Amino acid sequence: MKTIEVCLSPKLYSDKLTGGKFVTVITDIFRATTSVVAALDYGVKAILPVADLDDARALKQKGYVVAAEREGIKLDFADIGNSATEFFHPELKGKTIAYSTTNGVKAINMSSDASAVVLGAFLNLSAVAEWLSTKNESVVIFCAGWKNKVNLEDSLFAGALASLLTGKFGFTTNCDSVHLSMDLWQVARYNLFDYIEKSSHRHRLAHVINKELVEYTFTPDSTNVVPVFRNGLLVADDL
Amino acid sequence: MKTIEVCLSPKLYSDKLTGGKFVTVITDIFRATTSVVAALDYGVKAILPVADLDDARALKQKGYVVAAEREGIKLDFADIGNSATEFFHPELKGKTIAYSTTNGVKAINMSSDASAVVLGAFLNLSAVAEWLSTKNESVVIFCAGWKNKVNLEDSLFAGALASLLTGKFGFTTNCDSVHLSMDLWQVARYNLFDYIEKSSHRHRLAHVINKELVEYTFTPDSTNVVPVFRNGLLVADDL
Repeated sequence: MKTIEVCLSPKLYSDKLTGGKFVTVITDIFRATTSVVAALDYGVKAILPVADLDDARALKQKGYVVAAEREGIKLDFADIGNSATEFFHPELKGKTIAYSTTNGVKAINMSSDASAVVLGAFLNLSAVAEWLSTKNESVVIFCAGWKNKVNLEDSLFAGALASLLTGKFGFTTNCDSVHLSMDLWQVARYNLFDYIEKSSHRHRLAHVINKELVEYTFTPDSTNVVPVFRNGLLVADDL
Repeated sequence: MKTIEVCLSPKLYSDKLTGGKFVTVITDIFRATTSVVAALDYGVKAILPVADLDDARALKQKGYVVAAEREGIKLDFADIGNSATEFFHPELKGKTIAYSTTNGVKAINMSSDASAVVLGAFLNLSAVAEWLSTKNESVVIFCAGWKNKVNLEDSLFAGALASLLTGKFGFTTNCDSVHLSMDLWQVARYNLFDYIEKSSHRHRLAHVINKELVEYTFTPDSTNVVPVFRNGLLVADDL
């Protein structure tokens, strides 16, 4: 039986109850997973997630294009910041880009108990659901949160994905966080751009996330790209 | 400025952002906090929370009345189980009762950074809100959860209390878990007895929690008793 479990914060991942083989879906809506999905959809060949700035600097020396920012501001040595729209340059097509994301690397490393790790965002919501439906495995949705705190945007994505998996693809659940996030999604889904204005992370990043980027980020299903983690790289696994 | 923060699992308490002086409200709807509120309301003098069964056995030897159960079943050496209705015996009035609750003691110990620790349940929802409104301090709502997992019933209580504190008593928040739990409360509040049937904990305790106990547990405001933790004991602090 294929089940779903939601971990609303990285802190909760080690207490999950899912047994057997499972796929972990990492989500970090503001911003890593949205940006990686956008980049691979645009034609970037692969994303090399790196944990710290020293690694990012070293890769820059080796000739990689580097995406790196702190508090939403591009770092001096980097080529671009971490926002989705920064990847939309023709010269980046076909390239492997080193992407500095402390939380992202931490989440990927924590997910080493999963048989596969994929990235989910609103951009590829239905594609991820369909990709998961083709596997005969349970699903754990890993919300990156913010400094271990639960956040609205990742919880909403968890609810949206869980709603598709239970409603359309026969997954079952015995996890209260699944019910909670699905009910939250029902509250917000028809009013998402306004709803997300409540998000604390939205306020923290207000100086770099404009209205257009919010609408891009929260518009479902603009791509079929499903980023999967293989041999240290995030690469597109089209449906 | 008095703020509210919600920790949806004990695992998240150490990452809270509330600074300055604050009161921690512990909630464990199924069952410790509901039972303690019910017991003190009935006339029990004090509850001595104990972490393990050896302590509970030792207190039994010393002459205490002992409440202790595992998986919802009263233990052999105990006088009563941990359910709210077990405390409704005239001979328990005026007594101090040792109550075995591993999670409860853990939550109280973790809350040692708070200036006061009180217990919240639906039974005393408005009373707790009013009690908090009389302090000039922020509030952290600590959901006991179940084995570190987020659960619906504690999240709903957090949302109900946060709704009163923000709506009626001028508290503010920058915590996404507050928004999340308040929105969940709006979904469930007019249909609470049915809604809670989704709870995984409700299913785990189905053999000991009957319909009447669910209705008792989720009916707000049957008492003004606010249990406060003082000198190792939980005692009633009436409004």
